[in-house]
Amino acid sequence: MSDTAALLTRRRRLLGTQAPLFYEQPLHIVRGEGVWLFDADGRRYLDCYNNVPLVGHCHPEVVAALSQQAATLNVHTRYLHETILDYSERLLATFDPSLSMVLYTCTGSEANDQALRIARHCTGGAGIICTNLTYHGNTTAVDQVSPLFYGKVAPYPEVRAIPFPDSYRPLRGLSGRALAEAYAAEIDRAIESFDTAGIGFAGMIACPIFANEGLPTVPSGYLELALGKVHAAGGLFIADEVQAGFGRCGEMWSHQLHGITPDIVTMGKPMANGYPMAAVVTRAGLMESFRDAVMYFNTFGGNPVACAAADAVLTILERDGLAAHAQRIGDRVRDGFRQLAEHHDLIGDVRGDGLWIGVELVQDRSSREPATSATQRVVEGMKARGILLNRIGEFGNVLKMRPPLPFAEEHAELLLTTMGEVLATL
Amino acid sequence: MSDTAALLTRRRRLLGTQAPLFYEQPLHIVRGEGVWLFDADGRRYLDCYNNVPLVGHCHPEVVAALSQQAATLNVHTRYLHETILDYSERLLATFDPSLSMVLYTCTGSEANDQALRIARHCTGGAGIICTNLTYHGNTTAVDQVSPLFYGKVAPYPEVRAIPFPDSYRPLRGLSGRALAEAYAAEIDRAIESFDTAGIGFAGMIACPIFANEGLPTVPSGYLELALGKVHAAGGLFIADEVQAGFGRCGEMWSHQLHGITPDIVTMGKPMANGYPMAAVVTRAGLMESFRDAVMYFNTFGGNPVACAAADAVLTILERDGLAAHAQRIGDRVRDGFRQLAEHHDLIGDVRGDGLWIGVELVQDRSSREPATSATQRVVEGMKARGILLNRIGEFGNVLKMRPPLPFAEEHAELLLTTMGEVLATL
Repeated sequence: MSDTAALLTRRRRLLGTQAPLFYEQPLHIVRGEGVWLFDADGRRYLDCYNNVPLVGHCHPEVVAALSQQAATLNVHTRYLHETILDYSERLLATFDPSLSMVLYTCTGSEANDQALRIARHCTGGAGIICTNLTYHGNTTAVDQVSPLFYGKVAPYPEVRAIPFPDSYRPLRGLSGRALAEAYAAEIDRAIESFDTAGIGFAGMIACPIFANEGLPTVPSGYLELALGKVHAAGGLFIADEVQAGFGRCGEMWSHQLHGITPDIVTMGKPMANGYPMAAVVTRAGLMESFRDAVMYFNTFGGNPVACAAADAVLTILERDGLAAHAQRIGDRVRDGFRQLAEHHDLIGDVRGDGLWIGVELVQDRSSREPATSATQRVVEGMKARGILLNRIGEFGNVLKMRPPLPFAEEHAELLLTTMGEVLATL
Repeated sequence: MSDTAALLTRRRRLLGTQAPLFYEQPLHIVRGEGVWLFDADGRRYLDCYNNVPLVGHCHPEVVAALSQQAATLNVHTRYLHETILDYSERLLATFDPSLSMVLYTCTGSEANDQALRIARHCTGGAGIICTNLTYHGNTTAVDQVSPLFYGKVAPYPEVRAIPFPDSYRPLRGLSGRALAEAYAAEIDRAIESFDTAGIGFAGMIACPIFANEGLPTVPSGYLELALGKVHAAGGLFIADEVQAGFGRCGEMWSHQLHGITPDIVTMGKPMANGYPMAAVVTRAGLMESFRDAVMYFNTFGGNPVACAAADAVLTILERDGLAAHAQRIGDRVRDGFRQLAEHHDLIGDVRGDGLWIGVELVQDRSSREPATSATQRVVEGMKARGILLNRIGEFGNVLKMRPPLPFAEEHAELLLTTMGEVLATL
């Protein structure tokens, strides 16, 4: 039995047959460094997929910060400690000044669960609007606002799943401002249906770049309209920046791309480069109202090691100018895909912000019929040539790329050259 | 402004005025080592409170394991990796063989949330029984089974909060088997009330040592009766070992003290000595049924660093015989408190298992009227003398002690001698 087969057998016995894995033949990864992952046979892969190791796999400064703090003190936050305060000040300085308080959790699921609790507590309502192809996490409450895995219609009375804003397959063929208004009108309808059902409205949760929906180009003005409608109905707007945040989109936070200030922001995955850490940031009034009524405590949340690792991430991000770098290299990759599109009709749409890159593959550019199986062959073909990426979207036909931010010009060239080779084989 | 006052001001501004802290004057802790914590003035405190640093604060072997793995690879579990398999095999070997699969999360709250999801999915019911002074965590769903912070009666249709089994303030003055049966009869009543309300029964969640309820001596046979009643009604029994597990009670798992095999076990806090890690262990049939229907994935859960740290904890626990040590030293501490009780009428009850130690203080041994304010003075008096512990229970009159397991004879003597001094001042 091969090494992979033996590991798979053990894994199915211990974790279950459905514990998720990537690729037709899963990879056995043993080492990471910068933008590279290495398998058990010593083969290296250019990582164009993983957004958690934001400043690079095993970044020595992050490893040093967490190792040193773990050797000094790691205890909960019911004693005073400076690390959490120093980090919180730095973190909050990256937001609009109205977003001035932070609550720590360990995962994005926990952060979104607390955000829902804050929104429901502070509005007195229960009804939450989400988009219909999103995923916000895995707790009981957050699963209810995650239609990606249950289908487009929410079977929960307190949830309405509305169409995500899509410029490539637009509602009623609209475009521009009319498209933004048409998608925003879905929010009115959801709020009315809560009214009709006698369910108070608590707010809306959305990832500002709709990362799980396939990184659609968001119709200009949509998020501003959405925020206005949510506020007009007395609700709160939660921006889920768990995937999108921390500079990858070219700005520190993806809601800043759209010029909006949410009421609540959640963050997580890349926050401490892989150390389990996440947070909710909101206005002082909302946080105090929640904390006055609810005894919230998280044993591991905001502990000195988490804060030391997260602080090292912010230092590297700022010192190395990684947000601007992400914008520059991301634009270079998108340009390269547009050049490839001149020779490959399969490429229907190239989009994204910074080092969030989505490329939609279609069988025909007029009908825009999804090229789902070709997309899968691209993912597997790239892997066979040592490049890791994945696919998303309603039809599984959007190539999803979001490499560690130190992704350089040479890595972009390798990605594009290899992509050209793979596309030529289809 | 003093150092403490300045830190408090910053903390209130950044985290909110209600972010919880210990003690009238919070401690500013900067270093930990073994059973000791050190404040910013270099003063050391004997830590009789913290259960998370199970093998001691900043244990060098755990720090080395996590530092080395963090420098090598830290990535999610959708690639194959041996660390998670090796650790899972070791972990599962500590349970009854029927409990053969594990699902990883990052916190006890997440573990309990997934346990509720598994129980509800596999039974098709929604109704959950919990005890009326318990805390299982902070997600929306888990908060509903955590009456400690909302009062004794659950305001949620799908939750029934029943009296926890208390041998010191027993139901109707009963004792022995009759007391166990009387408390277990509350489970029948809760199941009947779900029936009456047309709510399907999913199961019961309880910490086998009722750590949040004040570490009551559990009436013999109660948990076995409870398990039988839950099963007879088609429900599943979730043992929350998030606080209790990993050897502290003298056995690896506190449900093993009671000779029961739960359907689902959750664990967390001490699992990786402070690295955020938690898990759900259950039967293969239940896990497969859940995973077949639900796409569960946790970005940080079971990552190589978490598993390396947790594996180091198991190695130290087994090699150093810490469960047996906890039993021996815990018995020594309880003996010492019983000797103190000969001179101090305040001590009403001394109880616990292993290095779970509860001491209930009363104003009068006949009436058992709680000595709440004296208990608070003991906690503060011990802190003033360099010993950290805390209090719990319905009346806040139970001293709660659960030191790191390397707590030795000399530390027990220091705790007891100092306790004698403090009791003499009251």
